[in-house]
Amino acid sequence: MQEKKDDKTKGAGKFMLAEKLMKKYGAGRPEDTGCISSTALLLEGIHFSLVYFPLSHLGYKAAICAIAGVYSDGGTPEQLTVSLGIGTRHKIDDIEMITEGISLACKNHSLKINGISLETSLTGLTIAVTATGRPGSFADRAAAPSGTDLLCVTGNLGGAWAGLHVLERERKVYEESGGAQPQLERYSYIIEKQLKPEFPAALITSLADQGITPTSMTVTSEGLASDAITLCRKAGVGCIVYVDRLPVAAETKDAAAEMNLEPVIGALNGGDDFELLFTIPVTQHSLIENMEGVTVIGHITPSGDGCNLSLSDGSLTRLMAPGWEGK
Amino acid sequence: MQEKKDDKTKGAGKFMLAEKLMKKYGAGRPEDTGCISSTALLLEGIHFSLVYFPLSHLGYKAAICAIAGVYSDGGTPEQLTVSLGIGTRHKIDDIEMITEGISLACKNHSLKINGISLETSLTGLTIAVTATGRPGSFADRAAAPSGTDLLCVTGNLGGAWAGLHVLERERKVYEESGGAQPQLERYSYIIEKQLKPEFPAALITSLADQGITPTSMTVTSEGLASDAITLCRKAGVGCIVYVDRLPVAAETKDAAAEMNLEPVIGALNGGDDFELLFTIPVTQHSLIENMEGVTVIGHITPSGDGCNLSLSDGSLTRLMAPGWEGK
Repeated sequence: MQEKKDDKTKGAGKFMLAEKLMKKYGAGRPEDTGCISSTALLLEGIHFSLVYFPLSHLGYKAAICAIAGVYSDGGTPEQLTVSLGIGTRHKIDDIEMITEGISLACKNHSLKINGISLETSLTGLTIAVTATGRPGSFADRAAAPSGTDLLCVTGNLGGAWAGLHVLERERKVYEESGGAQPQLERYSYIIEKQLKPEFPAALITSLADQGITPTSMTVTSEGLASDAITLCRKAGVGCIVYVDRLPVAAETKDAAAEMNLEPVIGALNGGDDFELLFTIPVTQHSLIENMEGVTVIGHITPSGDGCNLSLSDGSLTRLMAPGWEGK
Repeated sequence: MQEKKDDKTKGAGKFMLAEKLMKKYGAGRPEDTGCISSTALLLEGIHFSLVYFPLSHLGYKAAICAIAGVYSDGGTPEQLTVSLGIGTRHKIDDIEMITEGISLACKNHSLKINGISLETSLTGLTIAVTATGRPGSFADRAAAPSGTDLLCVTGNLGGAWAGLHVLERERKVYEESGGAQPQLERYSYIIEKQLKPEFPAALITSLADQGITPTSMTVTSEGLASDAITLCRKAGVGCIVYVDRLPVAAETKDAAAEMNLEPVIGALNGGDDFELLFTIPVTQHSLIENMEGVTVIGHITPSGDGCNLSLSDGSLTRLMAPGWEGK
């Protein structure tokens, strides 16, 4: 899940570093061992603020984050384990609310909770959720994007980002006014994208039904740019993303305009959208064009070309993302 | 892993609460889905102090903690994923050292690291490690301790506890003296138990080789008393542990005597020993008696009897453990 704090410098190069460590210590592409797992680690003050995050939603989001990781890795999620680091200010009811939210996400995606452990935390709330499942059949996990595969994304981008900005703005108003109740009704779409995101799991089945065979898949949790870079670097390819093709909801555009923000920034670098980002062979172009809720936003290129953004005037610029600085 | 902080009240009743939540939201006994997972969540100041914990050892211990969970749940661990919450004071070399330790534990137990993710932490170091594996064959996972099954433990207990007390004592001396180097050589056995614990995975195979079929198994990570209570409550049985049968190493006894500590407390309530605690049918008594490194410490009783400790004079007292207070 994307880090929310303002000071992005602390996380500078973290994906670059994780990649280096994986090259040194990791196993390369995971083998098919009959088990796919995905862990979401959420830290208070970094991934969420309890000022506006209802605890049940927070539990829901943490679970969705872990569950989406199994889906997007080609798995069928089945079980979930929960570890909570609880500070002194949290009461038993709080822990129950977090668990309630996690439980709802599990119900919606047919997972069973098979373990809950509670730890004491000296500082903030820490949530670690692990989803596990069996390999599914949507794609050969050994496949990788290549040649001129198309880069596709589901739903729309930047909604959670816009929702976060509204929540942060209202938090400041609330604090400065000494408690004026925020008016959030007309932002409900983007706020829900931030506080209680869904994951389009059913679309994976739809893809298979349409005869579409993804050659790679991930979930947009860190922001489209970051996740596209991760996907491409793992496979040793590059990509071009067409800025004019990025799907952005009207609610996101409206809220961004109101706050003098550029929605393209949200679409590229806003995180927590939990949409599917995947590649398909270019020969399946006509099949994907007819699918609702999916947009072709670019295509794969040779590795040497790197990851690029094609601007409205046709010029290319490097696709940038926090955490991918450095070498 | 056991919480190290002095103020135990913060964690009061946490196992009781986790049990309640599992009853409400959990799936009961895990089904055999082809995947066993175990997550270790280690929080700075709670589970470890960086004053005396070398980062590579910390990584090693975190990995052992997760790996032991898969083994003791009847699985063969195969893969491991790492999520680190890194504070500003940690450098790239520090992250590398933690990963190095994790990698060594993986090598020793034939696991592959298939994911490393780095998060920013506002406060202390947070380590979440998840090991996954396939169900092994040591026992039918649907089995549960019953009747008069024998309660057995591998190795010895309280070593990590004694090591922690020595380290804490030397930390204070160091701080109060303004930097006097501690003399730790003669405590190397118990300090290693605390800082770089091993897990007797090979004994699981030995049990099978001897025709011994555990009816339940766990790992002593929270302390024998706590882990025995967890094991019994899950199965709806009680137990009697004989205090005179608890295996305690000479090094543990010596260090405890020196510090005016009662080694039985360490054996019962000291955590992080990472020994196997398991039950076997009473009919296999003669088989287990001949096995090196295993001690029969008690037996299962009917549920209504609860978990009890049999003292040297033959009297019974309730088996107590932090986190199991309340109802």
